[in-house]
Amino acid sequence: MKTYNLAILGGSGAVGYEMLKLLIDRNFPIKNLYLFASKKSAGKKITYKDKSYIIKELHNSSFKDIDIVLGAIDAKIMKSYLPAIMQDGAILIDNSSAFRMEKGIPLVIPEINPQDIYTHKGIISNPNCATIIALTALYPLHQHAHIKRMIVSTYQAVSGAGEKGINELKEQIQGSFAHQVFPYPIAFNLIPQIGDFEQNDYTSEEMKMQNEGRKILNQNDLSISCTCVRVPVYRSHSLSIYVEFEKEIDVSTAKNLLADAKGVILLDDNTQYPMPLYSSEKDDVYVGRIRQDLKNKNHALHLWCCGDQLRKGAALNAVQIAELLIKNHV
Amino acid sequence: MKTYNLAILGGSGAVGYEMLKLLIDRNFPIKNLYLFASKKSAGKKITYKDKSYIIKELHNSSFKDIDIVLGAIDAKIMKSYLPAIMQDGAILIDNSSAFRMEKGIPLVIPEINPQDIYTHKGIISNPNCATIIALTALYPLHQHAHIKRMIVSTYQAVSGAGEKGINELKEQIQGSFAHQVFPYPIAFNLIPQIGDFEQNDYTSEEMKMQNEGRKILNQNDLSISCTCVRVPVYRSHSLSIYVEFEKEIDVSTAKNLLADAKGVILLDDNTQYPMPLYSSEKDDVYVGRIRQDLKNKNHALHLWCCGDQLRKGAALNAVQIAELLIKNHV
Repeated sequence: MKTYNLAILGGSGAVGYEMLKLLIDRNFPIKNLYLFASKKSAGKKITYKDKSYIIKELHNSSFKDIDIVLGAIDAKIMKSYLPAIMQDGAILIDNSSAFRMEKGIPLVIPEINPQDIYTHKGIISNPNCATIIALTALYPLHQHAHIKRMIVSTYQAVSGAGEKGINELKEQIQGSFAHQVFPYPIAFNLIPQIGDFEQNDYTSEEMKMQNEGRKILNQNDLSISCTCVRVPVYRSHSLSIYVEFEKEIDVSTAKNLLADAKGVILLDDNTQYPMPLYSSEKDDVYVGRIRQDLKNKNHALHLWCCGDQLRKGAALNAVQIAELLIKNHV
Repeated sequence: MKTYNLAILGGSGAVGYEMLKLLIDRNFPIKNLYLFASKKSAGKKITYKDKSYIIKELHNSSFKDIDIVLGAIDAKIMKSYLPAIMQDGAILIDNSSAFRMEKGIPLVIPEINPQDIYTHKGIISNPNCATIIALTALYPLHQHAHIKRMIVSTYQAVSGAGEKGINELKEQIQGSFAHQVFPYPIAFNLIPQIGDFEQNDYTSEEMKMQNEGRKILNQNDLSISCTCVRVPVYRSHSLSIYVEFEKEIDVSTAKNLLADAKGVILLDDNTQYPMPLYSSEKDDVYVGRIRQDLKNKNHALHLWCCGDQLRKGAALNAVQIAELLIKNHV
């Protein structure tokens, strides 16, 4: 069996660690696995299942002999390393926003548009975490009734800002009022700002779902209006979604489609529903609370979904793309 | 100046205590003020601004000489005391859901339908907390452009379930996993169920906004689809709202209307927005994050609002109704 040299960029971070765990747990055919990060983390030891990895400092010379690079670092830094990766012929699967909206660079959710990997020219982008969770949940319904429009309110976990987000909430819960990662204290609070404000008063995080959703579903008239809110939850993003379809759809059809879908678990029986505490460290996206809209009864649904944004929202989706690449010899 | 005998039912609870504070702080013309509760709380001393009140056990004979009863007890128990209150000729301003949807009983938000108090026959109902916060925020826009439809996702504080909800979150934060007030642990979690499930799969809390909204705005075709979620926040409910209007409305008009409105504070400049930590123990409803919908550009807005559900969402609204009654000699 062919094996591969892999590099994780951002190996000391929350998403990088999930990538490592998934590669091991899913028996990815690894020849050598390298973890890179900035100088600050170099030398740090990362251990998983009795095996240790020493974080190396990332350099332009880090990509020699690497087949697949999994990127879990900041968009700006990612961009600066692109020439070196390209020169050494590695394929980059990038979790940053650096290349997502660039023409010709595939943006892939394996359950939705796996065929797009064939068009890659060295880079495949991993979508935004909330976008992956929402679209994975909705795609089985889209195939049946075709989504026209979505209105989404998010409830996003602090680990969406990495380990430092987790630590800031932990310290605030212990009584510290200091905040550095988030613009205001998050303990016992809600912050309706994720990312920066754009000209239309939406935040960058709020615009990602429409922009990336249009590209992933290859549908330029898709309208997704989001309100993104940070909540004092450690892990797993949750979303309250109103979704309008071209064709008729009812609640029982939607439940049947979701019960059969890959990557999705339906949890909808009035005593059970998705909750972030229970979808954490799970691979699937959990969907429930499916209801007819009270006005647009035959063409619109409300639902609630939760997914681990470090897993399916980031690391798992990237590893699934890597698996697609080697399986299809792309 | 005429003074009144008042009774607070549920004087040992979170809403009852807010009622006491507001009556004192707003210089309500009190002759005597009595706090009643169940046998369990009888004898307990409640102190505010150096004045103490001993909780008395509630009996059918408690309403002699009482002019105004402020009800902050469970709907079922409230119903059982109604004959005694009526017999003694007191006016009941009731915060429970017992009589809200009954024909002929006014359901009042003083900023919206103060005129409805004139039709009372001994009972005036105080609306559901999330409904008060949403409608107070939206009414200035409704007067201008007429609301047709709303899609609401709530982020509701644990004190919506009273003192016991606050204590349950506090204990869970300290490491206890026990839960009794909420159906699942709420610390570091989100629970997308408030109230009981109805036949259409919406919860009782989710249906209140449409049912009560139609009555308060006197508009039977109003459609409000809600998803109500409990969040690990101590105080102040927050709401992400999509609102569709009959007439055209733009963001700057909406901001101007809200800046001038009574009971509302506009907080919308990209570094400031409403947050529950900051709207707690405040009287006004805070509104911000006002944006055009990305599809329905001229007739729909998204916004975010926070309000203290124990104040404007409950106790303050009830005290404002009492003030209207005595001011207008109704």
